[in-house]
Amino acid sequence: MKKILVDIAQLTPAHRAAISEAAARRGFAAVFCESREQALAEAADAEIIFGPDVALPGAAPRLKWLCVPSAGAEAYLSPEIYASPEAVLTNSSGAYGVTIAEHIVMAALELMRRQLDYDKIVAGRGWRRDLPIRSLRGSRIALLGAGDIGRTAARRLRGFEPASITGVNRSGKNPGEFDRVLPVSRLDEALPETDLLVMSLPGTPETAGIMDARRLALLPEDTYLVNVGRGSAVDEAALAAMLRDGRLAGAALDVFETEPLPPDSPLWDCPRLLITPHVAGNMTLGYTVDRIVEMFLEDFDNYCDGRPLRRRVDRNKGY
Amino acid sequence: MKKILVDIAQLTPAHRAAISEAAARRGFAAVFCESREQALAEAADAEIIFGPDVALPGAAPRLKWLCVPSAGAEAYLSPEIYASPEAVLTNSSGAYGVTIAEHIVMAALELMRRQLDYDKIVAGRGWRRDLPIRSLRGSRIALLGAGDIGRTAARRLRGFEPASITGVNRSGKNPGEFDRVLPVSRLDEALPETDLLVMSLPGTPETAGIMDARRLALLPEDTYLVNVGRGSAVDEAALAAMLRDGRLAGAALDVFETEPLPPDSPLWDCPRLLITPHVAGNMTLGYTVDRIVEMFLEDFDNYCDGRPLRRRVDRNKGY
Repeated sequence: MKKILVDIAQLTPAHRAAISEAAARRGFAAVFCESREQALAEAADAEIIFGPDVALPGAAPRLKWLCVPSAGAEAYLSPEIYASPEAVLTNSSGAYGVTIAEHIVMAALELMRRQLDYDKIVAGRGWRRDLPIRSLRGSRIALLGAGDIGRTAARRLRGFEPASITGVNRSGKNPGEFDRVLPVSRLDEALPETDLLVMSLPGTPETAGIMDARRLALLPEDTYLVNVGRGSAVDEAALAAMLRDGRLAGAALDVFETEPLPPDSPLWDCPRLLITPHVAGNMTLGYTVDRIVEMFLEDFDNYCDGRPLRRRVDRNKGY
Repeated sequence: MKKILVDIAQLTPAHRAAISEAAARRGFAAVFCESREQALAEAADAEIIFGPDVALPGAAPRLKWLCVPSAGAEAYLSPEIYASPEAVLTNSSGAYGVTIAEHIVMAALELMRRQLDYDKIVAGRGWRRDLPIRSLRGSRIALLGAGDIGRTAARRLRGFEPASITGVNRSGKNPGEFDRVLPVSRLDEALPETDLLVMSLPGTPETAGIMDARRLALLPEDTYLVNVGRGSAVDEAALAAMLRDGRLAGAALDVFETEPLPPDSPLWDCPRLLITPHVAGNMTLGYTVDRIVEMFLEDFDNYCDGRPLRRRVDRNKGY
């Protein structure tokens, strides 16, 4: 029998049942793995792999489809990880918008409301109420990255009555939730008019270093920056220098050039910086796992019926 | 010349100019005070006082109207503080919705996303990503207090796709932003069906102790509670015991029975509790001060034209 190898720790019994039933309807057996050893052994005759372990495609010479539960796919692009050269890759872009958008709103409000300072005051059992704060209301918001995450964030930010929401993406086409969308070639125009810059870019050669020292310097001094995409997109050293010198109001980084953030990183002590350990969009929210399974099952139907897979990633382009 | 005594530290030059011009158009002089001594002396012949100092009405025998910049008015109800018995009282309810709503969303997300724990992990330069989190999406939200704050919060929370938003107020009438509104007599019905309870009640005899130990126990164990109204509305000791025992998922308190929170309060060490020093709705946000001045000037026109004041507080009822 044709095999789907499923190797995702966060699945509930209900998720497993749904996958098993869908598989059986199409003449597949779903095998759920309890250990890496088991997964590597079961990969030998797997036609489909649903899981994040980058070692499995190399152990699966009969693999036709790899579905990874992450939105980022850069770890799965190299031909060298595949024992089956023509295996198709899909990601789970679309599952993380809700959780990452909530992180974005939380982080932006923490920065604007001086919550980093108030947390310290309260930790010392102090009582002080007079720190000047800012508001999403009336703010000019720019979302660098206007995919699922940017759109889901824009819908939530809209309710806070910002002055404007600008998206920046490859095409410059407006998927609907933005007041305007600029192509990335016009990014330099948007930066000087931004109170809150939210970055949700995938890790590709085009996005590496996109917010370099020159572009960071285009932001007004009272701007806040939130990065939930990839750490490689921001020049960390330049950003830290700006935060130290007061040339930026604040930043929230959930992603870093090197993760885990090294113990000797100067970022740990950087003022006006909210650090979170890459938690904006992982699989700790039940809804995210629900969506990952739903999307896999949708593409499983496409696969079985010979239709194109909806979340296919071009292994050359990386998206 | 008739006098408006203005004693609000947060006014900008633009605010002062707007008040002076409006006063002059109506035959008033606006006097801005730089010290408490000056304010007490100037009060002697003031017809209108615009400021929070509870001592000023007692020094103003000719006072006809006291406008306080706060939303809460309980400090200004007692006849004993007035040298002029029939002085009319107005508050600035309506100026704080935006800032308090942002605090509510921030605090709820911090609780649901385990930000208190992640802050500790990051403070120790740790890296851990696996704490189970929750989402506003699909949550049943109850807003106890459906006035300006509750409505402004509801509009912002709607974008997060909650399962439902229930308001609870005196009348049970729906001002529009809620899926349903229950009268406070039916509060006990709402509590067992609540994932997030937001309290924005004024301090009145009716609201004191409204969330007592019995009602707190009606909440499901995985509920989050956010209080931005008055500390007197919640039984703090009962709440702290529930948080310690894991009978409540988390709480965010911006207001307390005694403020500043006493150094020996057991709340400082309470788990799952986000403490902020009564900063959700003070005058540290420029937009709030803008609104306070706008609303004063609107009622100043009403006053001069002999119309009822829009934000009048019944000194017997307290709202």
